Amino acid sequence: MNTQDLIKPLIQKNTTKILLVVLDGVGGLPVQGRTELEAADTPNLDALAQTSACGLHIPVSMGITPGSGPGHLSLFGYDPIECQIGRGILEALGLGLDVKKTDIAVRGNYATIENGIIKDRRAGRIPTEQSKKLTERLQNELSKIDEADVIFAPGMEHRFAVVFKFPELLEPGSSAVNDTDPQKEGNPPLYPVPSTPQAEKVARVAEKLINQAPEILKNEERANYILLRGFSSPPDIPTFENAFGLSALAIATYPMYRGLAKLIEMDAPPITGNLEEEIDFLKQNYHDYDFFFMHVKKIDSYGEDGNFDGKADRIEEFDLILPQILELNPDVLIITGDHSTPSLLKGHSWHPVPVLLKSPYVLGGLCKAFSERECTKGELGIFPSVNIMPLALANSLRLKKFGA
Amino acid sequence: MNTQDLIKPLIQKNTTKILLVVLDGVGGLPVQGRTELEAADTPNLDALAQTSACGLHIPVSMGITPGSGPGHLSLFGYDPIECQIGRGILEALGLGLDVKKTDIAVRGNYATIENGIIKDRRAGRIPTEQSKKLTERLQNELSKIDEADVIFAPGMEHRFAVVFKFPELLEPGSSAVNDTDPQKEGNPPLYPVPSTPQAEKVARVAEKLINQAPEILKNEERANYILLRGFSSPPDIPTFENAFGLSALAIATYPMYRGLAKLIEMDAPPITGNLEEEIDFLKQNYHDYDFFFMHVKKIDSYGEDGNFDGKADRIEEFDLILPQILELNPDVLIITGDHSTPSLLKGHSWHPVPVLLKSPYVLGGLCKAFSERECTKGELGIFPSVNIMPLALANSLRLKKFGA
Repeated sequence: MNTQDLIKPLIQKNTTKILLVVLDGVGGLPVQGRTELEAADTPNLDALAQTSACGLHIPVSMGITPGSGPGHLSLFGYDPIECQIGRGILEALGLGLDVKKTDIAVRGNYATIENGIIKDRRAGRIPTEQSKKLTERLQNELSKIDEADVIFAPGMEHRFAVVFKFPELLEPGSSAVNDTDPQKEGNPPLYPVPSTPQAEKVARVAEKLINQAPEILKNEERANYILLRGFSSPPDIPTFENAFGLSALAIATYPMYRGLAKLIEMDAPPITGNLEEEIDFLKQNYHDYDFFFMHVKKIDSYGEDGNFDGKADRIEEFDLILPQILELNPDVLIITGDHSTPSLLKGHSWHPVPVLLKSPYVLGGLCKAFSERECTKGELGIFPSVNIMPLALANSLRLKKFGA
Repeated sequence: MNTQDLIKPLIQKNTTKILLVVLDGVGGLPVQGRTELEAADTPNLDALAQTSACGLHIPVSMGITPGSGPGHLSLFGYDPIECQIGRGILEALGLGLDVKKTDIAVRGNYATIENGIIKDRRAGRIPTEQSKKLTERLQNELSKIDEADVIFAPGMEHRFAVVFKFPELLEPGSSAVNDTDPQKEGNPPLYPVPSTPQAEKVARVAEKLINQAPEILKNEERANYILLRGFSSPPDIPTFENAFGLSALAIATYPMYRGLAKLIEMDAPPITGNLEEEIDFLKQNYHDYDFFFMHVKKIDSYGEDGNFDGKADRIEEFDLILPQILELNPDVLIITGDHSTPSLLKGHSWHPVPVLLKSPYVLGGLCKAFSERECTKGELGIFPSVNIMPLALANSLRLKKFGA
């Protein structure tokens, strides 16, 4: 049985507060004997781990490296295999576009075409600044196709995202349109063919888009064509409040993580700045929500760059502000990551992610520090990430007994 | 979702090598305070465990004692409950017969019949030597029944196996023929009745076999009849290469383990000898495959005999040759068993099996030795055996990220 179905009838109201801090990519691997968490000087995290329930969680399955989508959905209590997020959706969220249940999102590339043949699938990686201007031009001239409002967002270099906003919910299967990118240069672009009858409406909009865009771009030397990939609609999943009975606020400076939170209808107003700004925002809104998802991005970025010391420094930076979080005294505080990003691997990895859960109802006393190795000794064991939300609810006394 | 379905779209090519060493039945239980692994002097295994990812795996489910079939299939990444291997198949493989997807395999017993009544279901446990001769006689006179080639193999005492080799794939359900063994002496033998229409073809061959064999055996005093049990066809499962993208070589001196490997189309040429011969064979073929399954049988045999010291000695024997394996420097080395065989129980048991995984991408530093108790402290935890293959692929950098 799906975890959400199991706990749904057990949910009870309470005034307790839950704070989930996601240190993006926090898990690591040893370099010269120590992981980033072990090398970082983190007296506050370590003291907290000593009195918390600790363990390691597996986002998808053993050996599987999660993307950011499945990593976060698991933490939010959604089965990451059942609830997959399409590439178009994730790209659109990452570029700051809102995506609603009535929308179709698509990844786009500027490309170079000559006599009907794709010469360069990336239009010579045109500068981001130029892509921004071209995308504005497309937006001005193509804001509506058929019944769909069309919203563009420029990305890095040749990339952009586009969302077709339909006036009402489409039928299931509506996003089943193939990529128009032939993947190989020297070939003509493909047509956006619907692979189900339900997808015909979306394919028609896409076809008009790829027919009209080259007219608008015809004087461009390189970016005179567009290729579309990853047609997708948002996953059909319950809202976070509906699933867990919690009003929720997302605190994230990067659009993609706000976007993931918005997919399940958490409030996620745009904020900018660093950790201090996030903490201020948390404090300002602390009385208005039951649940807070606070996202700390930079740790992952340094891991992705293979910068061991930089990642350790970012962990220390978080450790320094941790006392401000503890002052709020949330009933349940969970500190973890959405996946591991060992600087050794310069990317996401399959390794279980350390987690600590502070509440009045834990054993504690099992781990000396907050690290991958110390967390193996913890009372939570090694467990699927989707179980974090039931643990959060239980520890905040928001779940009734199962069975008599 | 099935693990294989989950990882299939994530598989990417690489030139990395994976070596899976199966110490058959290695897990044990304490006798005078120490298990066989704890009593054995194993400096090499212990040193390796200190720098490896360790844990314990559960072949089928907690409390379930696996046979050799499910034990190995789980290690090879196949769900042992979904993919069950029939008794006839396992017996035929164990006696060195090849089994193809177009075959039906059956276990046989010589029996004593008198006036149509089974007097002795085991023909007085005739000597193996005699059984060998009788089986040769059956083979000579019954090499073809209807369209099926019939292949016999003698076993120990009254046992034999027979394979019906059909010219083409049979329909699903074709092996649904009941045993002809009435299980009780003093009863007449049963007819091989097809329980589905698809099984009629096989039942007809079986009926001709049990009608003609007594003619051939009529002058035997005891072994004048044959009983058939466990009609089965090979499981309909993907090949190992298809499931995991790995070319694979099985190195095993016992026919059953080569046979299990051949069921999933690993290469498994016959080899004889002891550990040294296996290592030589591994070295000779090391450049030609991605994946190696090396089976070490003797540890289990001593466990089955209840010979604690003998089992510990065989473990030490393996420890002595371990440096030769390490010299090959495989990218991923996994050392484990297919199940536990505590000499205390003189047989397979349900206990989780210690495992170590060496790769550049592990934490290590959590276990002092390779033993059941030390492995409980490891970073892999206690987990289902089917997850070993995804871990092997991840650690050999052969899996892409799941989701964006």
